[in-house]
Amino acid sequence: MTTTRRFEPADDEWRQRTIDSFERQPMMQTLGVEVVTIEPGAVTLSFKRDDRFAQQHSFMHAGSLTTLADSACGWAALTLMPADHAVLTVSFTVNLLRPADGERFTAHAMVVKPGRTLTVADATVIADDAHDRPIATMTATLMGVTDRGITG
Amino acid sequence: MTTTRRFEPADDEWRQRTIDSFERQPMMQTLGVEVVTIEPGAVTLSFKRDDRFAQQHSFMHAGSLTTLADSACGWAALTLMPADHAVLTVSFTVNLLRPADGERFTAHAMVVKPGRTLTVADATVIADDAHDRPIATMTATLMGVTDRGITG
Amino acid sequence: MTTTRRFEPADDEWRQRTIDSFERQPMMQTLGVEVVTIEPGAVTLSFKRDDRFAQQHSFMHAGSLTTLADSACGWAALTLMPADHAVLTVSFTVNLLRPADGERFTAHAMVVKPGRTLTVADATVIADDAHDRPIATMTATLMGVTDRGITG
Amino acid sequence: MTTTRRFEPADDEWRQRTIDSFERQPMMQTLGVEVVTIEPGAVTLSFKRDDRFAQQHSFMHAGSLTTLADSACGWAALTLMPADHAVLTVSFTVNLLRPADGERFTAHAMVVKPGRTLTVADATVIADDAHDRPIATMTATLMGVTDRGITG
Repeated sequence: MTTTRRFEPADDEWRQRTIDSFERQPMMQTLGVEVVTIEPGAVTLSFKRDDRFAQQHSFMHAGSLTTLADSACGWAALTLMPADHAVLTVSFTVNLLRPADGERFTAHAMVVKPGRTLTVADATVIADDAHDRPIATMTATLMGVTDRGITG
Repeated sequence: MTTTRRFEPADDEWRQRTIDSFERQPMMQTLGVEVVTIEPGAVTLSFKRDDRFAQQHSFMHAGSLTTLADSACGWAALTLMPADHAVLTVSFTVNLLRPADGERFTAHAMVVKPGRTLTVADATVIADDAHDRPIATMTATLMGVTDRGITG
Repeated sequence: MTTTRRFEPADDEWRQRTIDSFERQPMMQTLGVEVVTIEPGAVTLSFKRDDRFAQQHSFMHAGSLTTLADSACGWAALTLMPADHAVLTVSFTVNLLRPADGERFTAHAMVVKPGRTLTVADATVIADDAHDRPIATMTATLMGVTDRGITG
Repeated sequence: MTTTRRFEPADDEWRQRTIDSFERQPMMQTLGVEVVTIEPGAVTLSFKRDDRFAQQHSFMHAGSLTTLADSACGWAALTLMPADHAVLTVSFTVNLLRPADGERFTAHAMVVKPGRTLTVADATVIADDAHDRPIATMTATLMGVTDRGITG
């Protein structure tokens, strides 16, 4: 349907800046999240099944999947931001499509609409490379901010 | 990312049944909505700019775009339902990405996850064939119902 | 739960400015929407059942209810904006709770969080004063803009 | 606006059943979540700030707040279910209103619309009892399921 656009980073250091931001986030270490790929406007993250983050049926908790997807959307937005910008999540909607059953969970996030102030990104969460059977989807709205305040 | 699945209709009359449902809906006539394509799990609808459904800047009102996208999602879900089923919208999230400026607005809807009770569908709304610059996106959750009640 | 806050308008002309904006919007005339109340951070709008905006079961179409609720949220946000600002809807989520059966539909919108750039507002849509049986709810994110661009 | 309804549990053992379900969920122990109150259709949960679940600015991660709010909504729905039912989250929308800064975070969830198949619940997340300054809101759609499948 919609043709995928190629995005141009606003800052040559986009990759290192995104990795640095990832490494400063304790929640990523706690969940054991790994960076799979970082491209301009697209970030893939994954983690392994961990029963500490499961719900009562031993599927991964929706909150774990949301953390993975929100993080992937946030860094996908960050890759397109100027050097002095950070990204805050404004809102997201998550649809839980199938039980989160599997050994490894991967969130693919892609910017749908970059913007001076607001960026919209989508993420799809899959289990064990089953690309044709997503277990969750997210649409997130993110805001670029600087130390001096919101971008505008 | 996610591979597009081919969906199998549950009922041979899926196309005629969807068209019949469309033709019974007064809101579609009021907005001047036309069916562009109907495939199993995918429906495209469009309407022409009409200032009666505009907001104060003469862009089309978000409510008009939502009506178009919700209808496309609903009929995309209906194509996969058994013969005696209707579809109700449970909820949707709409992101408005760009001003709704143009002469013709088209919503492409596709089922993401068909289900016995719940179906999830996505729609993208574009203006004047600008596929690379969507003006709005929707994710909708829809429920199959029969005259005897909710499917389950 | 959350205590309702009293909001202070940023501009003495907030009421007249909101009414002027409402009167410039063709979609409101087309649907026959009336302003019930305008207070700082809270707007109530209503319309009468009109079969042109119904779906096939003669309930009002979800798109009509969304138009009403989105408009109420937008003007609720506008009441708190500085004089030179307009409001754009960024996104909304709608939950459809009951069939839209009735003679008059009313959307009560209230600002949940005003902001320099982004405002969040909730709306509840009821039929025929049945306050204890809402037919739809909306949460909307709105952005303040000026002629010179986005507020920030 | 909407009058709060009193809900009648469908099962006398609603309180014990909800507590049992909570105690079987590893994610709740991992995050250190405590049950504050359980009433028919309303559950309040809280946790203390824990830097393991923070993002890079030492605010709590949106994923932690989402886990808390989703869990509160799920158990609020469960209080109104028949004895042999469990609850699955279908979808939710989260709005992040303020930085998650504080020592204790509390999610108040309340059923908006109970249903045979689908329940809608809202949650508000606050920090340190600042009821007038919510840091996040959620609207969740939940589905009742039995061992034999979806309720319907």
